[in-house]
Amino acid sequence: MKKFEGLIAAPFAPMNGAGEVMPEAIAGYCEFLEKNRVVGAFINGSTGEGVSLSQKEKMVITEAWTAAAKEKKIKVINLVGGTSWRESAESALHSAEAGVDAIAILAPYYFKPAGAKQLAEFCARIAEAVPRLPVYFYHIPVLTGCYVNMIDFLQEASAMIPNLAGIKYTHEDFMDFLSCIHFMDGKYDMMWGRDENILSALVLGCRSGVGSTFNYAAPLYYSMIDAFDTGDLATARRLQQQSIDMIRLLGKYGGIATGKAYMKYIGFDFGNFRLPVKNMSADMYEKFKDDVQALQMEPLFSKR
Amino acid sequence: MKKFEGLIAAPFAPMNGAGEVMPEAIAGYCEFLEKNRVVGAFINGSTGEGVSLSQKEKMVITEAWTAAAKEKKIKVINLVGGTSWRESAESALHSAEAGVDAIAILAPYYFKPAGAKQLAEFCARIAEAVPRLPVYFYHIPVLTGCYVNMIDFLQEASAMIPNLAGIKYTHEDFMDFLSCIHFMDGKYDMMWGRDENILSALVLGCRSGVGSTFNYAAPLYYSMIDAFDTGDLATARRLQQQSIDMIRLLGKYGGIATGKAYMKYIGFDFGNFRLPVKNMSADMYEKFKDDVQALQMEPLFSKR
Amino acid sequence: MKKFEGLIAAPFAPMNGAGEVMPEAIAGYCEFLEKNRVVGAFINGSTGEGVSLSQKEKMVITEAWTAAAKEKKIKVINLVGGTSWRESAESALHSAEAGVDAIAILAPYYFKPAGAKQLAEFCARIAEAVPRLPVYFYHIPVLTGCYVNMIDFLQEASAMIPNLAGIKYTHEDFMDFLSCIHFMDGKYDMMWGRDENILSALVLGCRSGVGSTFNYAAPLYYSMIDAFDTGDLATARRLQQQSIDMIRLLGKYGGIATGKAYMKYIGFDFGNFRLPVKNMSADMYEKFKDDVQALQMEPLFSKR
Amino acid sequence: MKKFEGLIAAPFAPMNGAGEVMPEAIAGYCEFLEKNRVVGAFINGSTGEGVSLSQKEKMVITEAWTAAAKEKKIKVINLVGGTSWRESAESALHSAEAGVDAIAILAPYYFKPAGAKQLAEFCARIAEAVPRLPVYFYHIPVLTGCYVNMIDFLQEASAMIPNLAGIKYTHEDFMDFLSCIHFMDGKYDMMWGRDENILSALVLGCRSGVGSTFNYAAPLYYSMIDAFDTGDLATARRLQQQSIDMIRLLGKYGGIATGKAYMKYIGFDFGNFRLPVKNMSADMYEKFKDDVQALQMEPLFSKR
Repeated sequence: MKKFEGLIAAPFAPMNGAGEVMPEAIAGYCEFLEKNRVVGAFINGSTGEGVSLSQKEKMVITEAWTAAAKEKKIKVINLVGGTSWRESAESALHSAEAGVDAIAILAPYYFKPAGAKQLAEFCARIAEAVPRLPVYFYHIPVLTGCYVNMIDFLQEASAMIPNLAGIKYTHEDFMDFLSCIHFMDGKYDMMWGRDENILSALVLGCRSGVGSTFNYAAPLYYSMIDAFDTGDLATARRLQQQSIDMIRLLGKYGGIATGKAYMKYIGFDFGNFRLPVKNMSADMYEKFKDDVQALQMEPLFSKR
Repeated sequence: MKKFEGLIAAPFAPMNGAGEVMPEAIAGYCEFLEKNRVVGAFINGSTGEGVSLSQKEKMVITEAWTAAAKEKKIKVINLVGGTSWRESAESALHSAEAGVDAIAILAPYYFKPAGAKQLAEFCARIAEAVPRLPVYFYHIPVLTGCYVNMIDFLQEASAMIPNLAGIKYTHEDFMDFLSCIHFMDGKYDMMWGRDENILSALVLGCRSGVGSTFNYAAPLYYSMIDAFDTGDLATARRLQQQSIDMIRLLGKYGGIATGKAYMKYIGFDFGNFRLPVKNMSADMYEKFKDDVQALQMEPLFSKR
Repeated sequence: MKKFEGLIAAPFAPMNGAGEVMPEAIAGYCEFLEKNRVVGAFINGSTGEGVSLSQKEKMVITEAWTAAAKEKKIKVINLVGGTSWRESAESALHSAEAGVDAIAILAPYYFKPAGAKQLAEFCARIAEAVPRLPVYFYHIPVLTGCYVNMIDFLQEASAMIPNLAGIKYTHEDFMDFLSCIHFMDGKYDMMWGRDENILSALVLGCRSGVGSTFNYAAPLYYSMIDAFDTGDLATARRLQQQSIDMIRLLGKYGGIATGKAYMKYIGFDFGNFRLPVKNMSADMYEKFKDDVQALQMEPLFSKR
Repeated sequence: MKKFEGLIAAPFAPMNGAGEVMPEAIAGYCEFLEKNRVVGAFINGSTGEGVSLSQKEKMVITEAWTAAAKEKKIKVINLVGGTSWRESAESALHSAEAGVDAIAILAPYYFKPAGAKQLAEFCARIAEAVPRLPVYFYHIPVLTGCYVNMIDFLQEASAMIPNLAGIKYTHEDFMDFLSCIHFMDGKYDMMWGRDENILSALVLGCRSGVGSTFNYAAPLYYSMIDAFDTGDLATARRLQQQSIDMIRLLGKYGGIATGKAYMKYIGFDFGNFRLPVKNMSADMYEKFKDDVQALQMEPLFSKR
């Protein structure tokens, strides 16, 4: 598989009022993303609440996405992460059958790997279940508690995992990230996972991002990338600041669930995040709407 | 259910050389625990590698334990923890069918609850699937990353979860622990989960412990409890020090997997811990044996 | 010097409305402590705001305490901690001249020692400036960020520091604490530094505590120690719970500065804590007073 | 004062074999920095071991630097940080008398400020002692433990501290950093403090860095800045990677003290770091030299 170029959204898990997943919403969701030039869907990840879904629900969502993306320009990457490599390997096999373009693996987040070697061995067990599929590692230590440097991981994993394709890098260690970009002459696809500072990754040579805000603000980031590519850094910085202002509302309104509020704002009601994630009340949503309007960035939101 | 009195072992998951679970070893394991006066088995927990097993494997183990304990004085508590309350509720239902005496719930360890309320709500969803079973909360923040105070949790959960029975408390906050002991006139069963300082919990009124070293050193702890109960504190302290010296070898030899090495030392080969946990090499095991012998505590180990 | 037996208060730094230290208040303060059976004053520590005072102010306070304690049964321990061992050694020399009974040393809290050896070497440089004074190490990792185990420290320091007398242990690692109690047949004076769980230290053989709440609630703790010593554990636990309820108000009202509010409550106006510590407003103090009254523990407070 | 443009070195504290500071080495040191186009000296900081020196030693060093820089193009910024604002204010006054160009203030690192307001108030007390001097805040949470966001700090401090000039930002929060750059139309001088990823700060509009490796590798960074400014990003990335490879040796050889080993390598013997910092042995230094030679980056080191 070629390296990704552009924005990969981490889709939300659409749920109805009763908290059940709504696979029927995914075809339209996929179309919407493609319309906004998104090139991939990283499903069942943090934004997609993979850890809060049952194994069966994740399969239903995976199948809905591969069906929806079939005739579209959107690639599907399915996170098969978990704490049991056996169960993740089963998910990987199902993903292959369902026709995903790639899988992604998460560091185990209960028992933390002692080092890069143990982490690579853990991933290898899963990757070898699907030798023909590209495999990404999803590095998000703030949630997994696994702070192994990715350059150390690549040194171990490059020998152990022939189908390793790259890393979704959701951490602020640009020293480590640049080292990974340069590792083995740029063999691995290094995708940036922090929307709020992607400009600092672009300058290092990164060409793609995986994030939650690409669901609803893809135009903002494509404008930023264009500005960066044409050397208009003043504009790029201004757009990054707008992305920051937008993301700061996530903190103000309680965290990750605010992403679904942004989706609602642009017209998609995907319900609530499951427990233990906290959702905002109806009252807070009204205040949130006011705050979003005050940002005055309508043209930068994705279009239905 | 009455409060527990005595030692509850957190059994290891017996595995063969190929890394497959060996349910057939459990009947003998259970008999051995009972022979050493252990009063309960807290299965599929940290020591039992619940997070590293597949859902199916956990069910197999659960059924083997309830079968083995049926005509014994050992109660079975099954940890149904996970990050998806839906999946945990399914496990709870299976546990009830399999005939466990109680279930235990873990804080979700990927998305961390925003506070005591979210944690209690998460647990309530699981507990209400099995309204007739006693439910324990398993507090182990060093692994889950959920540092909610248990006194705050009880204040929320006591109203929400009628079948809440108590807490397995694996954390060193004795201020919080004593507050829980006193909460609602001692309504909840507070079981201590740190073998290395259980003496400091006994003085607070705690009457039971759940731990991994009770698998192989139950006599040590029963002697300590007896000494404490008869006011022979000098002996109790000496025994606690021996427990510390024994537990310090876990750190020296790489952590939790050393527990299976202790089991091997006293005659049970339960295989390795699964990845990402690191196991000691055969060479290291020889050194470990020497270190154990140097402790000179044979009479305090459990008897086959 | 014999080991301490009983309560050592960590006195507050008395300040006037302008935020200047008031050494003239110390004679009366010392008398008050003695009247309440306090056996030592651990000055210029965390409670005493040593780190917020200038070198000169600390000297003034030290001299006032040694003068005040001269003909009393109160021993004075002066914390000479800092991040520069040279400056701490100078303070140690001054302490000796001023006539303190012992000094205490803190782990350096900017550059953290790489391990027990570096920590012991750092302390040795200070201790050797005052070879005839007993030296205590003050272990409070939550503030210093130095999480070296004290048993490892003792193993290094016992050979390097002939005048090492013991440790003020302000951390919740009872496994480490008990190991230190047993080290070299109990050579070192292990003083407990967490008032809220001192009962769990008493059972391990600890005979003294150093804390801030001994300033205003010495009777509570002496009652607890008496109850423990006579085997009346139910009473000891109830008193520990009252200490917890009292200490919980520190958290509710913003932290360490609440200690000075307790002093005000019993009749000593020692002013505010210096920046960056936050003090409660006059309004909050009124609510605090109500909360203290609701605890209904007047007889357990120290008497003027 | 105009904003800085270029590299500001954080000089090491020159010490002799006995561990005494050598102010006589500073004139030559200053000349060497200027020769390598360094535009400022940030003295008594982390690299300069300010926290390990006595107040008197810091004054001696300050005076030596202002004397040395007098007729040079190097500006002197003196870190007057500490945990007592009174003592820091005294240092600030002395700095003004000694003729520094600016002072810098550190967050107090024992008691941590409750929030941005407390931090700003603490700094204000020091800054108001020297109203005519520009004041920088030195943000290095990994050492101070104060993780207040700088955009929140600026919002408080901009009103309280008229002579606030900017921030030395030694932390990897590019979202916060960019927000500070844009705050009040770019009023504040935002200097980057992490040499290993300064390229990711340049793209955000940052024009200066303060760091330890600028002592010995200024040409590397000036080449990087030139490449960035002319749009030659491939070269800029390659140079950043060389900086990373160089900096990785600090981790390999034990940390901050390795900086003095680099100085020795290029011809300056500045002795050891004081305790508690660990220094490398003579044997390790030989291996270190081999590793440095293997980097093959001689032309990028500073020239004597």
